[in-house]
Amino acid sequence: MSERGRQAFADVMTIPAPDDPSPAASRMLEFVFADVWQRPALSRRDRRFVTLACVADADAEAPLRDHVYAALNSGDLTITEMQETVLHFAVYGGWPKASRFNSMVDEQWDRIHRERGGQVPAPPRLLPLDTSADPETRLAAGEQAFKDINCLEYAPPRDNPFHGAGILNFVFGEMWLRPGLGMRERRLITVACVAFQDAPYPILSHVYAALRSRDLSFDEMDELALHFAAHCGWPKASNLNQVISEQKQRVLAEWADEDAGP
Amino acid sequence: MSERGRQAFADVMTIPAPDDPSPAASRMLEFVFADVWQRPALSRRDRRFVTLACVADADAEAPLRDHVYAALNSGDLTITEMQETVLHFAVYGGWPKASRFNSMVDEQWDRIHRERGGQVPAPPRLLPLDTSADPETRLAAGEQAFKDINCLEYAPPRDNPFHGAGILNFVFGEMWLRPGLGMRERRLITVACVAFQDAPYPILSHVYAALRSRDLSFDEMDELALHFAAHCGWPKASNLNQVISEQKQRVLAEWADEDAGP
Amino acid sequence: MSERGRQAFADVMTIPAPDDPSPAASRMLEFVFADVWQRPALSRRDRRFVTLACVADADAEAPLRDHVYAALNSGDLTITEMQETVLHFAVYGGWPKASRFNSMVDEQWDRIHRERGGQVPAPPRLLPLDTSADPETRLAAGEQAFKDINCLEYAPPRDNPFHGAGILNFVFGEMWLRPGLGMRERRLITVACVAFQDAPYPILSHVYAALRSRDLSFDEMDELALHFAAHCGWPKASNLNQVISEQKQRVLAEWADEDAGP
Repeated sequence: MSERGRQAFADVMTIPAPDDPSPAASRMLEFVFADVWQRPALSRRDRRFVTLACVADADAEAPLRDHVYAALNSGDLTITEMQETVLHFAVYGGWPKASRFNSMVDEQWDRIHRERGGQVPAPPRLLPLDTSADPETRLAAGEQAFKDINCLEYAPPRDNPFHGAGILNFVFGEMWLRPGLGMRERRLITVACVAFQDAPYPILSHVYAALRSRDLSFDEMDELALHFAAHCGWPKASNLNQVISEQKQRVLAEWADEDAGP
Repeated sequence: MSERGRQAFADVMTIPAPDDPSPAASRMLEFVFADVWQRPALSRRDRRFVTLACVADADAEAPLRDHVYAALNSGDLTITEMQETVLHFAVYGGWPKASRFNSMVDEQWDRIHRERGGQVPAPPRLLPLDTSADPETRLAAGEQAFKDINCLEYAPPRDNPFHGAGILNFVFGEMWLRPGLGMRERRLITVACVAFQDAPYPILSHVYAALRSRDLSFDEMDELALHFAAHCGWPKASNLNQVISEQKQRVLAEWADEDAGP
Repeated sequence: MSERGRQAFADVMTIPAPDDPSPAASRMLEFVFADVWQRPALSRRDRRFVTLACVADADAEAPLRDHVYAALNSGDLTITEMQETVLHFAVYGGWPKASRFNSMVDEQWDRIHRERGGQVPAPPRLLPLDTSADPETRLAAGEQAFKDINCLEYAPPRDNPFHGAGILNFVFGEMWLRPGLGMRERRLITVACVAFQDAPYPILSHVYAALRSRDLSFDEMDELALHFAAHCGWPKASNLNQVISEQKQRVLAEWADEDAGP
């Protein structure tokens, strides 16, 4: 690996680059760390959220461990942000993988404190929640949040278990509204998750909403597609890239309509 | 395909077998439908739950559509059971794939009523929920359900977003306790989901709990592994199969201890 | 398991078949090893590339370990071919899974030398690369390789991070052009990867290009679908099979047009 590659690896991972990778592995490390991670448009912190979603999905234990450690050890994410990332990931990536992600966070947080000779501080109390406990109020708040976050004028029907008990009551009625993680960060995690999950409509709707809300700029979204490609593979990224290019056109057309006025 | 293969396909899918598959495709259809689906230990209805989880994960639109249609059209699942299956799948397989699964259920339910010349009935009202709205009461109920369903003597800490806001508040505090789907059916869906999600501990814990609770017998669990293999591939099934064999030993040892008494 | 099944398992895996699988597991082993792996059209070596992609994706550690070992121990793949397979997989399956695959290759290569009482030889030097370091020359070569390998008359725009920095600069400007692995082998890996990644356009384009280039014959591609079905499950294979059948028609029509001439 080149000196530039070794430095880029150490900067991102907060540990030295491996000593003797095979030629093929060396080439890949060089591409991922010296080329992709060093590009503009997304900061190193931004790239953490995309990467964490990808490695939590990928099921390879070592990359998950190393990226959780690096994100916390670099100070790019606080432990609260990391824990909210796990919960957000649970919804979009599935609870089994999130369960492993959560254990890894506990383990690496403990490791960092041991390495620094400190004590792991006690977690903040969960209750009281910010969101209402009353089912009717939660559903109404979930409907409003669904519209706001998805940039849509309608919400799905309540009387369907997936939408009512799940999407409106929990996903938009509570999870997206939690403190501890900003909307921009939730967008980065969500777009990465829907891109590896592959269901077409969620990819379209979350790319659209991230651009339409201006939480992510066009250049940032393009950069997200490249970062995702390196971590989840080109086929899924190719699909994401196609959707991004279509949704940019849609958003531009909507903005032009608004500027033209009534 | 053999006549036996064609009949098996038609029995499961409620539509005729395809006319001219390639020899390789024909061999696979024969194995899946004439061999696997016709085996004892799990009923056709049981196999629906495993299969729906697998095809909802797999992202291939046609198999998802065909299996949703077949499960409803055969009468093996009611629409309520199917909708609860979607919500349960959302938790263990992730909401993006569940969103597509949910749309497919609506679409195929409509198709079945059109084919039969009937009207799609209005859905039952969602509220009031069976579970408490008070956050403290929900968390306490979630802790108890976590212990009961996982056959464990402890519950995870509340003051962690993933465990507190997610697992205790929603997954075990509400979702597993919902009416509309029995514990045995939830076990079949969950084991399939954790097996394709790959995170090691959830596979171990859900296989253990399904056997320990006697919701699934040893033979049923072995059969689940074969059915899963046909629908999610041999490598993941091989891992599941290994876990099953270890957890059987653990459960047998625990039962022997209990019989021995104090 | 039958004696034929046990021999087939030992031939493929280079270790003895397991002693007491459950009847269900036994049925699956019999199907995978005695039926699928023994079929004509694809050689055992060919099947290694498809299988390695499937197990590297599937995240079950034992099958990945066993297939890496078997591919090297049988002599079907050299270590150089295996390492290039890892890099090719990294691009189509994502870097985190490839990282684990890479570690497993090192580990099993070491194990094979220990078992044989030998020393692991030093890896060959990486540099010099065959491909140009000049960015403009690389992009131009990437555009040409993109057209040649995909059997298309156009290349995507340079001024998009995914396409410019990723696809043209790295994937087609370097990775596909590397020595150490033939075009046929790269096709086998790629089709397996896009089939489990599920993004619709890459499946279509890589099946098309593999057939159009005659790197894989129609019969070989059908056989690939069956082999993939056994290792990644019937639903994804069913989708692949549908795409194959459509792309065969497209390629046949194009060949007929060319034969008709101007």
